[in-house]
Amino acid sequence: MKVGFIGFGEVASTLTIELLINGAEVFTCVEGRSDFSRNLAQEKNVNTVPTNEALAQKVDIILSAVTPAAAIDAAASIGTNFKGTYVDINNVSPEVVKSALQHIKQGKVVDAAIIGSVNRKKVQILASGKDAPEFAQLNDFGLNIKIIGTEIGQASGIKMLRSSYTKGVSALLWETFYAAYKMGVDEELFDVIGNTEGSEFKKSAISRMISTAFHASRRQEEMKEVQLALSLFEDPVLAKSTERKFHQIAQKLKRLDKKPDTYREAFLLWEKL
Amino acid sequence: MKVGFIGFGEVASTLTIELLINGAEVFTCVEGRSDFSRNLAQEKNVNTVPTNEALAQKVDIILSAVTPAAAIDAAASIGTNFKGTYVDINNVSPEVVKSALQHIKQGKVVDAAIIGSVNRKKVQILASGKDAPEFAQLNDFGLNIKIIGTEIGQASGIKMLRSSYTKGVSALLWETFYAAYKMGVDEELFDVIGNTEGSEFKKSAISRMISTAFHASRRQEEMKEVQLALSLFEDPVLAKSTERKFHQIAQKLKRLDKKPDTYREAFLLWEKL
Repeated sequence: MKVGFIGFGEVASTLTIELLINGAEVFTCVEGRSDFSRNLAQEKNVNTVPTNEALAQKVDIILSAVTPAAAIDAAASIGTNFKGTYVDINNVSPEVVKSALQHIKQGKVVDAAIIGSVNRKKVQILASGKDAPEFAQLNDFGLNIKIIGTEIGQASGIKMLRSSYTKGVSALLWETFYAAYKMGVDEELFDVIGNTEGSEFKKSAISRMISTAFHASRRQEEMKEVQLALSLFEDPVLAKSTERKFHQIAQKLKRLDKKPDTYREAFLLWEKL
Repeated sequence: MKVGFIGFGEVASTLTIELLINGAEVFTCVEGRSDFSRNLAQEKNVNTVPTNEALAQKVDIILSAVTPAAAIDAAASIGTNFKGTYVDINNVSPEVVKSALQHIKQGKVVDAAIIGSVNRKKVQILASGKDAPEFAQLNDFGLNIKIIGTEIGQASGIKMLRSSYTKGVSALLWETFYAAYKMGVDEELFDVIGNTEGSEFKKSAISRMISTAFHASRRQEEMKEVQLALSLFEDPVLAKSTERKFHQIAQKLKRLDKKPDTYREAFLLWEKL
């Protein structure tokens, strides 16, 4: 199986490790890419080609793994002759996936989404679209792909909805526990909420608050895509306020150069800056 | 131990059962109260007195268990001579508790909050204030009181913060799963979120969405108190949007005369009305 990546950052290089171990051949084009991507591709012993059109001639499956803003251009860059399977695995809303895949004139198309951090062992990849089984062949080459529907937009949609929930909870925790901390009842509140939310609540809540302090700016950006996805169906008032809360946090904390050790340290930094 | 209730609704009548079984004497004033309260007091064989001032002369501890709007008047109604312990157990913000307790000129004062439904066996009651141990004597008479701090406002504050979190999660679930339902991926989304949130996630999420459909109007009101409590420390953007989401739901669903059987039924009713 010959697999080509458009973009060779963290997602591509991490998936490449599994693919190579399991006997696939991996290709990418590094012309015009960053030094970071070039070095990664060299380090992983990936075959390089001069252009994305050349890539399309070489491989059976193309995975687009670029920055969200580049997703549509990536699909356009392979030209109109590709007859294999094109997979959009970018962190973008269903509408953007649909726009990107319109550039694939002859090939098969798949919507895919990585659930959670790509660095986790055997990270789960959701796939949708009637051609998703073509992509799922890569399960024989070390990936962990689950087909969840026959429509383009479902896999990327689930990723957006998961973000809507988990990022909303993070923002809610910050708002609630900041007030608790100021009232001197934060420890007690973990117990009281933990009584109904389960024994993992405290650990998970603390981890989310610390992580929010460090990633508020990136999460604020991600919430814009979430709002777009939800607004097709309703007025996403929670998604809007989640973005607003991350904005309030990021405004003061964007200069952090490491994760705070505790959530109280994060709150203190937030107050001081 | 002689315990007096101001107000004799669900909270008072439920706590009375435990108190009487465990050897306390219970008093209340039913003059000018609703037939519902009169009947409850009669049914539970509670001693009645003609006025709240008379109540204050009879008992060691007074528990104020009235509607939120009546909390301050309740404290004023016992006059200025009460030397026992006055406990505000109402569902109100810390600021309202403080205002109410200012009317108790000579007695001891305690802030208390019922966590969860009063109908649960041995429901947890949090108490704060330096006189909280006086109230906690009722643990010898069947109650389940936990002292969580020495300041008035901490117990009622924790109740508000618990509401901030649990009601926020409910609103977030509604917003997220309504979009999932419209995209045809709601079942899959339970699995994907459940992977990180734990095995109870689906059951708990469904129960919260059904409950939100039925209680949206009351919850919207409760979120106003939560906003007041949080706004002493920060701009409560999540609490505002949680109120707004309950408002969106209540506008269409306020006429429900029973809980929907499923969350999909709730979403269907919401779309149709």
